[in-house]
Amino acid sequence: MAEYQHIRVERADDVVRITMDRAARRNSLSAEHLAELLTAFREVAASDAVGVVLAGEGPVFSAGHDFADVAARDLEGVREMLTLCTDLMRTIESVPQVVIARVHGLATAAGCQLVASCDLAVAAEEAGFALPGGKGGWFCHTPAVPVARAIGRKRLMELALTGDPVDARTAEQWGLVNRVVPQAELDDAVDDLMRRATRGSRASKALGKQTIYAQLDRPEADAYAIAVEVMAAASQTPAAKEGMSSFLEKRPPVWTD
Amino acid sequence: MAEYQHIRVERADDVVRITMDRAARRNSLSAEHLAELLTAFREVAASDAVGVVLAGEGPVFSAGHDFADVAARDLEGVREMLTLCTDLMRTIESVPQVVIARVHGLATAAGCQLVASCDLAVAAEEAGFALPGGKGGWFCHTPAVPVARAIGRKRLMELALTGDPVDARTAEQWGLVNRVVPQAELDDAVDDLMRRATRGSRASKALGKQTIYAQLDRPEADAYAIAVEVMAAASQTPAAKEGMSSFLEKRPPVWTD
Amino acid sequence: MAEYQHIRVERADDVVRITMDRAARRNSLSAEHLAELLTAFREVAASDAVGVVLAGEGPVFSAGHDFADVAARDLEGVREMLTLCTDLMRTIESVPQVVIARVHGLATAAGCQLVASCDLAVAAEEAGFALPGGKGGWFCHTPAVPVARAIGRKRLMELALTGDPVDARTAEQWGLVNRVVPQAELDDAVDDLMRRATRGSRASKALGKQTIYAQLDRPEADAYAIAVEVMAAASQTPAAKEGMSSFLEKRPPVWTD
Repeated sequence: MAEYQHIRVERADDVVRITMDRAARRNSLSAEHLAELLTAFREVAASDAVGVVLAGEGPVFSAGHDFADVAARDLEGVREMLTLCTDLMRTIESVPQVVIARVHGLATAAGCQLVASCDLAVAAEEAGFALPGGKGGWFCHTPAVPVARAIGRKRLMELALTGDPVDARTAEQWGLVNRVVPQAELDDAVDDLMRRATRGSRASKALGKQTIYAQLDRPEADAYAIAVEVMAAASQTPAAKEGMSSFLEKRPPVWTD
Repeated sequence: MAEYQHIRVERADDVVRITMDRAARRNSLSAEHLAELLTAFREVAASDAVGVVLAGEGPVFSAGHDFADVAARDLEGVREMLTLCTDLMRTIESVPQVVIARVHGLATAAGCQLVASCDLAVAAEEAGFALPGGKGGWFCHTPAVPVARAIGRKRLMELALTGDPVDARTAEQWGLVNRVVPQAELDDAVDDLMRRATRGSRASKALGKQTIYAQLDRPEADAYAIAVEVMAAASQTPAAKEGMSSFLEKRPPVWTD
Repeated sequence: MAEYQHIRVERADDVVRITMDRAARRNSLSAEHLAELLTAFREVAASDAVGVVLAGEGPVFSAGHDFADVAARDLEGVREMLTLCTDLMRTIESVPQVVIARVHGLATAAGCQLVASCDLAVAAEEAGFALPGGKGGWFCHTPAVPVARAIGRKRLMELALTGDPVDARTAEQWGLVNRVVPQAELDDAVDDLMRRATRGSRASKALGKQTIYAQLDRPEADAYAIAVEVMAAASQTPAAKEGMSSFLEKRPPVWTD
């Protein structure tokens, strides 16, 4: 594994936990931090892990971009950093593993974008979600992309234009997170969701997740065109054959991939 | 009318009820069953009925594809069956009638896709909704297409990745169904919604429904381009003229189409 | 400023209130009324105001198109009026100001479309929302465009097919409005939201709002392509520089644009 300065990567059984470990800087996302996260997700993608938990150390989940890093950059430099950031977000969507955000505190700007970009999210009651660029001088343009696709248009506008945080319960009602639990139960809730989200054939699940992102915001006819071809091809895989045989033979399935 | 082995088709006044009638096989959707449903919807489309209720006999609404049927098919055979299934789903969206799913029990995989594909849905409190492929070997790729378009992204991921069912109240909060009522009130609730959804000119309503599906997941400018042309043309129809005249003359409208 | 017959335009500090002032005709949207609203929004767009409140005088917010006006028009005439109406809706989305709908009563058809087209909306408990064309002879094709993009598909179908109104609390749960308050608190709630939504650099916020509408319903990859370029360019503006400097220097920001 690569060596990291800004994050910790730990594996327990089949699940990797990637922890943003810049508590003193509120897990802000400098280019170096982003690059380490991207490397870590790529390493996990190439591994046999089935799930990833994205967590943060310290009082907040992530405060978004690091202004100390951004302020020093010219247009091309910022463009590079935002491209890196976007690569990270889309890599989270494309890795074959189930990715769950474990949101214990405030997630703002690109930190909120991370939550929106993970497949699933579990939040502690103390968590909050904000796109604070709206009340500053640099609008949260890219964070608004996946946040808009997780919540409704009016809610996105409220987050983006006011810059004010919403609490975890509101985020749950809006569909930005899947569960809200007391802080003390956060790890159990993440573990339970991860266990339920990683059953079955890994190969089937990975293809499933990736196909969902491929079809999600296309017109329905285009989405069906993709899904029908993938699902027909998938029907001939060992996993599909085993799933159907075990069901018809009333025995537990044995997954080989 | 065609003769059916797997479904029942009954008409009362202007509303046709199509009932999946394979209770012993949990209304699973074999190719023959799908073909009968498709034929029935096409027959209704060509009739003067104004509404369709899609119901299921027995303990569950529909368990989705019939593994006994799928397991025997090669890639081309599965592709044919999924294309047939997709034709059914998109036909439900394109028929001129208002289609309401009457969901009395569990709706899983392509059964859940049926609910998402109907214009409206009323569920009993005992109903449940699941995309179980996520915990098996054959992912629910095509069911995820309309389900993704009815509920948020994070919720879709939870259904699709865990494979676990959500209850009717959760489905209502997520926007997968319009109403949840006690089992004993299910037919009354369906009838009430159908009555309210089938008032007015049939020709106007049919064009309205079809235009909504045409514009729904296009960029807003494209959607407006479609809707403006259709609405301008529609303004010159007898139904529009009668609607406006009766309103201006303060008399009840009389619809001739 | 232009002189108006159907609306009132008032400015207090940096916020313009545009009031539909045809109470006797339930603020219905004749071509003349639409044209005045469009002119007013264009005038505001060219001004240094930071926010717009769209309000209605009398018992209802707006009853939608004026049938007395529509009924007299041929296809080309209706097409012109719908194009004017669409221009108004899209202008509301494109003006650099934050636009809040102040919905004190019923908003139907194009009136409901106005609410969906404003960036934000605050409703009184007495407000209601309907697409009544569904139970008449002229379907609400164009209102369904932005309403579909604010609420879920099943909810849109319920509104559009039944034509029946939903109350303010339901509209809030569905994401059509941001807040519901008692009638007596409506202006305070609008003012509070406007204050929070108009902090920070105006230039940054205007670009932010406009970029959101540019990316909203495109595939995610396309949306990111837009957002990355805009956000990189925006990082070099005086507002972004001031936002970052003030943050790093721990002093309040001073916005010059």
